[in-house]
Amino acid sequence: MRAVNLSEKLGLFTEHWSPKIVGELNDQYVKLAKFQGEFVWHKHVDEDEMFLVLHGTLVIHVREQGEERPVEVGEGEFFIVPRGMEHKPVADEEVHAILFEPKTVLNTGDVRNGFTLDELERI
Amino acid sequence: MRAVNLSEKLGLFTEHWSPKIVGELNDQYVKLAKFQGEFVWHKHVDEDEMFLVLHGTLVIHVREQGEERPVEVGEGEFFIVPRGMEHKPVADEEVHAILFEPKTVLNTGDVRNGFTLDELERI
Repeated sequence: MRAVNLSEKLGLFTEHWSPKIVGELNDQYVKLAKFQGEFVWHKHVDEDEMFLVLHGTLVIHVREQGEERPVEVGEGEFFIVPRGMEHKPVADEEVHAILFEPKTVLNTGDVRNGFTLDELERI
Repeated sequence: MRAVNLSEKLGLFTEHWSPKIVGELNDQYVKLAKFQGEFVWHKHVDEDEMFLVLHGTLVIHVREQGEERPVEVGEGEFFIVPRGMEHKPVADEEVHAILFEPKTVLNTGDVRNGFTLDELERI
């Protein structure tokens, strides 16, 4: 029974776009991730997804009624992508973030490609 | 559609032991809270509860099989209190934290007293 230290866990991996499970509660996972570059457009049909930025600035592009707009999420800020909303995270420089989402979430949502991870590591 | 800034939201209230709702996803609330002093022993029968400390050091006393022990949760650390576990948060100096828990959670769990809040403010 001890607390989880975010910096310590972030020191255990370097890969981008490969969230690691660091906790679970109420059928949700708490994940830590490092992002750099551009992810793919996708959506999660049944799951809301929360990004809380610990380091850097993440730009989450969202598509609403056919219109695209960027949502900037800086250090100490969070954004919740509602279920069904198409989004594409972009990090010009490295970003560290905590994610909260149901255990059922697939990282690339409704698309499968080189980014898709069917299993996530626990650290 | 914009990110939520934690510092900005923390600037909107001063009360201790009175979590404010700042987001919701997948039937869970994201709350911000300020703690100082000693809370009461309680448990949440059906809900796991996460404390992520943003400022200060929170000591969550837990009771397991009749034994009490303190879990220290410092800045940049989190701890998940599993459902059913008796706990009592204590903050010698002011602590700021994010909480994640199902919408159904009552702050004092299975007890009712002066700390009980039947409705939480959204900020």
